[in-house]
Amino acid sequence: NGVDKGVDFANYFCTYAYLYHQKEMLCDRVRMDAYYNAVFKNKEHFFGKNSFFSLYCAVVCDLSIFYWSWVGLDFSKLAKKTVLDVGTGSGILAIWSAQAGARKVYAVEATKMSDHARELVKANNLEDVVEVIEGTVEDIDLPEKGKYPSHARMWVAPIRSGLGDQKTSDFESSMDDWYRFVDETKTDYGVDMGVLTKPFSEEQRKYYLQTSMWNNLHPNQVIGVPAIIKEIDCLTATVNEVLNVRASFSSSITLDDTRFCGFGGWFDVHFRGSKESPARHEIELTTAPSLDNGTHWGQQVFLVHPPLRVQDSDELVVSFTMTRSKENHRLMEVEFNCDMRSSSGKQIRPFAKKFFIE
Amino acid sequence: NGVDKGVDFANYFCTYAYLYHQKEMLCDRVRMDAYYNAVFKNKEHFFGKNSFFSLYCAVVCDLSIFYWSWVGLDFSKLAKKTVLDVGTGSGILAIWSAQAGARKVYAVEATKMSDHARELVKANNLEDVVEVIEGTVEDIDLPEKGKYPSHARMWVAPIRSGLGDQKTSDFESSMDDWYRFVDETKTDYGVDMGVLTKPFSEEQRKYYLQTSMWNNLHPNQVIGVPAIIKEIDCLTATVNEVLNVRASFSSSITLDDTRFCGFGGWFDVHFRGSKESPARHEIELTTAPSLDNGTHWGQQVFLVHPPLRVQDSDELVVSFTMTRSKENHRLMEVEFNCDMRSSSGKQIRPFAKKFFIE
Ligand SMILES: Nc1ncnc2c1ncn2[C@@H]1O[C@H](CSCC[C@H](N)C(=O)O)[C@@H](O)[C@H]1O
Ligand SMILES: Nc1ncnc2c1ncn2[C@@H]1O[C@H](CSCC[C@H](N)C(=O)O)[C@@H](O)[C@H]1O
Repeated sequence: NGVDKGVDFANYFCTYAYLYHQKEMLCDRVRMDAYYNAVFKNKEHFFGKNSFFSLYCAVVCDLSIFYWSWVGLDFSKLAKKTVLDVGTGSGILAIWSAQAGARKVYAVEATKMSDHARELVKANNLEDVVEVIEGTVEDIDLPEKGKYPSHARMWVAPIRSGLGDQKTSDFESSMDDWYRFVDETKTDYGVDMGVLTKPFSEEQRKYYLQTSMWNNLHPNQVIGVPAIIKEIDCLTATVNEVLNVRASFSSSITLDDTRFCGFGGWFDVHFRGSKESPARHEIELTTAPSLDNGTHWGQQVFLVHPPLRVQDSDELVVSFTMTRSKENHRLMEVEFNCDMRSSSGKQIRPFAKKFFIE
Repeated sequence: NGVDKGVDFANYFCTYAYLYHQKEMLCDRVRMDAYYNAVFKNKEHFFGKNSFFSLYCAVVCDLSIFYWSWVGLDFSKLAKKTVLDVGTGSGILAIWSAQAGARKVYAVEATKMSDHARELVKANNLEDVVEVIEGTVEDIDLPEKGKYPSHARMWVAPIRSGLGDQKTSDFESSMDDWYRFVDETKTDYGVDMGVLTKPFSEEQRKYYLQTSMWNNLHPNQVIGVPAIIKEIDCLTATVNEVLNVRASFSSSITLDDTRFCGFGGWFDVHFRGSKESPARHEIELTTAPSLDNGTHWGQQVFLVHPPLRVQDSDELVVSFTMTRSKENHRLMEVEFNCDMRSSSGKQIRPFAKKFFIE
């Protein structure tokens, strides 16, 4: 891919080598229940000669707009009749698969967490079924092929939020501070820093106002109809399809006289098996704003500042693009091009906004 | 060195590409005044045919035990009669050197901050004297050679601190939480995580209790005589000398009936020129605990827990080693082997403690 393994480790994998971080994921009840049910309510997929079920959920979630796996996935390397757990982490999904009756589970993990996964497999008496392999899924060769019987969607919705005001004021006080600094450096140390005011302000604007943020949105912060910007059928998806997302959508405002402050984004996953072998119980995992069923993923928030006053039935027409940064696989660039069709006929200037997701 | 450039960028250099971070350093008054005086109180070093003065201070500070530059420095590549500013960052030291009368300044910077430095040089009308070069000092070829006329020392002293209690209790509640998690995962999800208790506790112990911490020590937290663990004469130092530090020292407790909670570490630098061309005004920059003259470097704290009750005149006999981690140049491993000679004749068991500095 042009990007070095060591760099990917330093940027992304490193955190997954900590049990602390694995535990955080393992303590996300909504996530755990969805995965657990996907396996144990569909046990028949794990039995018999011709059954298969690939637990791709972990990586599918990471693949979503908001938690994108850095990897260039090869969708052809998957175990049929057996389970391939890509990115097994602590090994939990591999273990469940074995407990549900899988013939063989390949549990692939890029980091040293693989050692812990192997121990866990042994302690749960499943070493005959689960084979833990340290490596990235792109690099290893598996004896069997298979499919990913799940389906993922990425969502975007207009939101209201106080974060824009807060970040704008953070940005402004950072600039005030900068001007003081420029004055003092001239007076006390004889160097004129004025020429750096522009790049500093650009750097700070990017940091405070053009970086998407993790947030746990309250459902009533969603002020318009959520739109799907991407559907991924994991049985047929190609890598390129996921690396460049383009979507046009429109969303009607559903609240009267409120502030449009930007967009919230999230994903959901459906474990539904394949056409030939559908899941008996389709399981959904959603990371949408929710009072009681929030996940550790939360939502990503993209702030548009200053907010626009909007009315019920105003129509937001958006063209959206998302591409992955070449230098850092975990970094993505997102652009919203918006047009507002006011229900009262009032014209609002179209606007474009670019963001970076880390 | 075996470690990839991209990895070093991801681990270390990345932050320096932000003006925000450069500004933090530029706002450290104690640091700035020391560098400023090192240049402007020794202007004669910058004039005339045979003058030279190498502004190595920035990197010397980074080289110190507590802010170690990741680089394998080649101490032979330095400009005589001219100034070499290794790691020029915003360009401030290069600009001062030129303002003080240097014939030529080579300002080397590894990150894209070099573009800003070049702009700053131009805006201050010094582009005829200062040449900004993007690259690491190991990679570039300079037309002239030179020396580093400064001197650095690393210090360690016994301290008292409440941080040990705090970190110990953080560690303990993290473990309580883990046990709850193990129970629940067994009950609710049918997987026994008990086998990971030991590695989790080791990971957490390392995080909470074996990682040195940045801290601004109050001078009265120092409870014994500070000891020098390393002197670096930058005129003659070799790379290997700085990569492996070994020292034996003893320190007398200077407070009666207090708690020995670990060690504090800091460094100082003296800009004193060379023997043939000594600085007219030697300038000291110290990062020792101080009420009024603290720096952004603060001190590094190495906690020993539980604390030991000590008395005035007790003697701490320590053998100290510090080596650099092979995988991550910014990571260092430090070991303290301690013996206590009690003034009352009471015996205290020798102990050893290992730490990681990030
Ligand atoms: N290309 C790749 N090859 C192998 N492992 C990968 C990978 N990309 C990500 N991973 C691993 O995938 C894991 C994702 S976190 C999910 C862990 C586990 N499946 C669970 O659900 O709890 C991390 O441990 C990460 O190191
Ligand atoms: N081996 C190397 N080659 C070139 N630049 C280096 C380097 N190691 C560190 N640096 C750079 O050195 C700078 C140290 S910070 C000090 C900046 C400036 N001299 C000042 O005093 O304000 C950083 O900008 C870092 O990117």
